Amino acid sequence: MTSTPQPRAVVNLNAGPSALPPAVLAKAAQAVVDLDNSGLSILCISHRSPAFDAIVAQANANLAHLLSIPTSDFSILWIQGGASTQFHAVVANLAARARGLGAPQDWVADYLVTGTWSEKAVEAANAAGIKTNVVWTGKPNKYTSVAPVSQWQRSPNRLYTYVCTNETIHGVELNDAILRDAATAATTEDPSHFRPLLVADMSSNILSRPVDINLYDIIFAGAQKNMGPAGVTIALVRNSLLAVQPDQAQFPLPLMIDYATYAKSNSMYNTPPVYAMYVTGLVLDWLKEHGGIAWIHDQNQVKADAVYKALEEAKHFTPVVAQADVRSRMNVVFQVVDDEGKPQEALNKKFTQFAEKRGVVGLPGHRSVGGCRASLYNAVTVEEAQVLVECIREFDRLL
Amino acid sequence: MTSTPQPRAVVNLNAGPSALPPAVLAKAAQAVVDLDNSGLSILCISHRSPAFDAIVAQANANLAHLLSIPTSDFSILWIQGGASTQFHAVVANLAARARGLGAPQDWVADYLVTGTWSEKAVEAANAAGIKTNVVWTGKPNKYTSVAPVSQWQRSPNRLYTYVCTNETIHGVELNDAILRDAATAATTEDPSHFRPLLVADMSSNILSRPVDINLYDIIFAGAQKNMGPAGVTIALVRNSLLAVQPDQAQFPLPLMIDYATYAKSNSMYNTPPVYAMYVTGLVLDWLKEHGGIAWIHDQNQVKADAVYKALEEAKHFTPVVAQADVRSRMNVVFQVVDDEGKPQEALNKKFTQFAEKRGVVGLPGHRSVGGCRASLYNAVTVEEAQVLVECIREFDRLL
Repeated sequence: MTSTPQPRAVVNLNAGPSALPPAVLAKAAQAVVDLDNSGLSILCISHRSPAFDAIVAQANANLAHLLSIPTSDFSILWIQGGASTQFHAVVANLAARARGLGAPQDWVADYLVTGTWSEKAVEAANAAGIKTNVVWTGKPNKYTSVAPVSQWQRSPNRLYTYVCTNETIHGVELNDAILRDAATAATTEDPSHFRPLLVADMSSNILSRPVDINLYDIIFAGAQKNMGPAGVTIALVRNSLLAVQPDQAQFPLPLMIDYATYAKSNSMYNTPPVYAMYVTGLVLDWLKEHGGIAWIHDQNQVKADAVYKALEEAKHFTPVVAQADVRSRMNVVFQVVDDEGKPQEALNKKFTQFAEKRGVVGLPGHRSVGGCRASLYNAVTVEEAQVLVECIREFDRLL
Repeated sequence: MTSTPQPRAVVNLNAGPSALPPAVLAKAAQAVVDLDNSGLSILCISHRSPAFDAIVAQANANLAHLLSIPTSDFSILWIQGGASTQFHAVVANLAARARGLGAPQDWVADYLVTGTWSEKAVEAANAAGIKTNVVWTGKPNKYTSVAPVSQWQRSPNRLYTYVCTNETIHGVELNDAILRDAATAATTEDPSHFRPLLVADMSSNILSRPVDINLYDIIFAGAQKNMGPAGVTIALVRNSLLAVQPDQAQFPLPLMIDYATYAKSNSMYNTPPVYAMYVTGLVLDWLKEHGGIAWIHDQNQVKADAVYKALEEAKHFTPVVAQADVRSRMNVVFQVVDDEGKPQEALNKKFTQFAEKRGVVGLPGHRSVGGCRASLYNAVTVEEAQVLVECIREFDRLL
């Protein structure tokens, strides 16, 4: 990064679109006026140009490097439409290929429901007319815990298991043990020796921690949390899936929903979202330069630990997710409570206003659940998380 | 626009993504660092914020004003995925609603094929399993003409007629007479008194000329030619269509393909492509400030007339589209010819290199057709078109 980063006036804890590194923003702004002294704006270059080819190639290489993606086994796809579009795309691509994959004839799709986003994924699957089975749902306890895999009601004839690794609204993050068990169990239970697949929505925690890509068959993530701006979604799809011809008679698969369309065209069947991809590439550059996943994982742990510790220690604050080992490091959901320990929306509002006066924005919880939420994505610094900690401590003293 | 426009070093005649006004780019760059002195980048604000609500409201109001959209009859939708996604979306939305619309039971879809993009739209409809009828195709004469509506083989039981108003690759633009006849004939032929619909892909000439929105039922357009950067597509959909409940059993319609999802949520069911929408809004501001459609229509005519005239007068240049009244004002497709008047790829290449040395970029024709193409979209000035004219004249003298 050669441009001088702008001073950041505001601590941005928005849930997405969210904070991006100031150095990335400076370069992203410059490119809007003139991309690398080409005389052309990044907004005005052809997606078929050598300049853009190089941008995409570097972004793909950085992503593969950062996540240790075995590129002979996986394709990196850049798609429009957000995770909500992927809820359907996953179903459509797998249903059209189920027969070719050798799935049991009476296959079903297993879903783990840990919050709003996995709930919506089940709805999309049901709307597509496929048979779904919820292996476990956190709904009865308001999504404040996750059962171990041993307690899931899994279908022996499942085509795939679907998980959302981090629930942005409810603040639940699947830990490594759950994810490993979900994948491992998948390979041993099935009597027909068909290997059930594992699909993960990683929209709000991709690139925040090490992940064993080999456990998965499809991973997708909207860029607008840890990766870049809104407007592009990345999918990592196992090449062995893409090699299976979709059965259009069984399940019609429109060209722009078929993952193979993107894989065959290097994600440029039609005009891709050039700028969102460019800025995502800058974020990947930034992450690599700063030390990659090991570095950011450490930073994220320090930030989350500090904030959860402050919440636990304060008399008038409480984290919402009861089960400590599935508390999200990305989205810390909490309530401000009265002297009796009861959450009060009036206090939550007072606190978010208090923090906003100190430059901390984005703290109100999602409109569907209320309360407060601090999103500590990759671009939020340890120092910025500390500003939030100080706000919590100071407000607690004042109450 | 308060920022000082940057000097433009290059005449950008790319076919899309393409030129944007320098004043728009200056403001678009500033917002990446700091949106309206908020301390936040446009890339990092919530799509649920009052700031973004205001941006979308103003963009919608400007678009409605510029195109004289009767907003009680039409919804303005912002969608991801480009026109290629719309090829399927049009089919899916209308097929799911055909029964509710009162269409004939044995309805078919009529397509006018005037180049690559309408060809692809037919393919998408066929892939979706609906019955299509090509009313006329320019393929036999390499898409260099368009027959009048009186010569189309129209289906009396058509659900809709589909047209592409400007073919970006072949340089064919439907004129007002054809479009008026296509719509007028639609209302009189059908024996069951069902009013067949008119659907138009206006990706590469929207906002370039006056258009009677009332003739149409669905209009869609990717932003990356006349409206903004890549990454967002606008659809104008008649509200009476949206009021019809889709028949999911007849034709399953995924949530993110259903136009009603966008209409009900003000295009924010999920995170929209914030920056692409913001920049599109800036372009709409710019167009309105400069005199709107009447002004730009005049500018576009002056530019196209000058370039076609130069091509006609030059000994070694020839426009590809034979029929003068369907020559595109947006994409001027031409060949450089030898002394015998024969097109020569070597000469085309020599000319594009000659022009590039004079700062004119984007002239090579689409890889599927070769030759040359000058895209004279709204943001290309009369002066810039004149630079191309001089290149043509000078190169012609040198040959």
